[in-house]
Amino acid sequence: MDSCRIDIRVRYAEVDRMGVLHHSRYWVYFEMGRTELLRRRNVVYADLEREGVFFVVAKCAAKFLAPARYDEVLMLTTRVVRTGRARIDHAYELKRAGDGVLLATAETTLACVDGDGRVRALPPAVADAPENT
Amino acid sequence: MDSCRIDIRVRYAEVDRMGVLHHSRYWVYFEMGRTELLRRRNVVYADLEREGVFFVVAKCAAKFLAPARYDEVLMLTTRVVRTGRARIDHAYELKRAGDGVLLATAETTLACVDGDGRVRALPPAVADAPENT
Amino acid sequence: MDSCRIDIRVRYAEVDRMGVLHHSRYWVYFEMGRTELLRRRNVVYADLEREGVFFVVAKCAAKFLAPARYDEVLMLTTRVVRTGRARIDHAYELKRAGDGVLLATAETTLACVDGDGRVRALPPAVADAPENT
Amino acid sequence: MDSCRIDIRVRYAEVDRMGVLHHSRYWVYFEMGRTELLRRRNVVYADLEREGVFFVVAKCAAKFLAPARYDEVLMLTTRVVRTGRARIDHAYELKRAGDGVLLATAETTLACVDGDGRVRALPPAVADAPENT
Repeated sequence: MDSCRIDIRVRYAEVDRMGVLHHSRYWVYFEMGRTELLRRRNVVYADLEREGVFFVVAKCAAKFLAPARYDEVLMLTTRVVRTGRARIDHAYELKRAGDGVLLATAETTLACVDGDGRVRALPPAVADAPENT
Repeated sequence: MDSCRIDIRVRYAEVDRMGVLHHSRYWVYFEMGRTELLRRRNVVYADLEREGVFFVVAKCAAKFLAPARYDEVLMLTTRVVRTGRARIDHAYELKRAGDGVLLATAETTLACVDGDGRVRALPPAVADAPENT
Repeated sequence: MDSCRIDIRVRYAEVDRMGVLHHSRYWVYFEMGRTELLRRRNVVYADLEREGVFFVVAKCAAKFLAPARYDEVLMLTTRVVRTGRARIDHAYELKRAGDGVLLATAETTLACVDGDGRVRALPPAVADAPENT
Repeated sequence: MDSCRIDIRVRYAEVDRMGVLHHSRYWVYFEMGRTELLRRRNVVYADLEREGVFFVVAKCAAKFLAPARYDEVLMLTTRVVRTGRARIDHAYELKRAGDGVLLATAETTLACVDGDGRVRALPPAVADAPENT
């Protein structure tokens, strides 16, 4: 069970003319989820980049079930669903904190690359995560 | 054959620390593609909204094949792949203008809703598009 | 003394190619500061808008003294410096939480308008704030 | 007379709940103005960065006179107003293309720094601009 839950309040600048969170911003939240999931394992993504380890999004998909509105607090659950030699798949569930309504689900596949964009193996701290053992 | 090609230059504020277009921004480009595709049919999306017709993204998926970099000019091709009573599916191809390399492909499903977020039929100007006849 | 301090962690999608917070994003943070300052007075900005009270930025100025970096936690202090019949001036100080270094200072002037964009008097809940008495 | 005019269409993802361009996005447009002004002089900012020359915004100020709306085409005029050993001041005027109404004016001061963030002299291609002779 390797997952992480964070709360995020929707910012004014993130909603569109309909008053709802623009679909492009969900990916920013999902990225925050991944950062915090790593931090729970004592891995700081900023440090990984300093050591030449980068994660790039290779594939993503999402379903938007209900709108998120300005100033609402959302609960994002991020978990690793699969880890390969040089890739990690995450799944996301975004709920409204107030009533627990599910707003969106998503999945991403990250590729691990070096500073020149060449595929490289996951660093041990990431590859040896609990869900792989 | 109902598609539309637009050129987009990657802005400084759109690239991340790796110097490449952040994956969240592609969706902003794809939305621009949809707006221009409508305009080719003499439909202005801003007018639709004034008449109480809104499109919300219900589903999306993308593959990122190669990075887009700051100041590069990209060619985005947007086309309608399917139209239902209250939904439209689009497909997108994003290439680098300089050498034609394919950078990303994506698909979205839009739902047509009214001002209160209730599903409604596509307006005739959108439903009667060439690809549906 | 009517001010409010919030902590904000810099998101990956907010930094640019130089690895530092893009200057356009500071305004998003300052807006968050204003929202939280109102909340401390039990005013929810989303409610104000529902009642036809909108604040628009009429003027702004900032000095950027030192860069804010990805994943750093920042401390933002927001305070009201002046209130007129239909305007509020705020001042902002953004520091790095780790060492207290001052990163940026800024000021904004907000105009209070109705749903049609016409200037209107501040609502009592905002006008009668402690700093005006 | 060293200035440059570009047209920019307001994107859906750039307007807020009021349907108007969010004040944080103007800075993205002004940055585009600077990039194009350099390009007119055959200077590509991406190349400058590759050579270790970076411009950082040290100071900025803006007045927002009238709202810019989704899908409107705007005309941005960018000009250099002053050049120092290691700094450049720009002024901006943003008008609505349709009727020429002035929407915003702004000024920025950029500092020229090297890859480590240390102040350095402007490169000759930028310092020797017509307005300095």
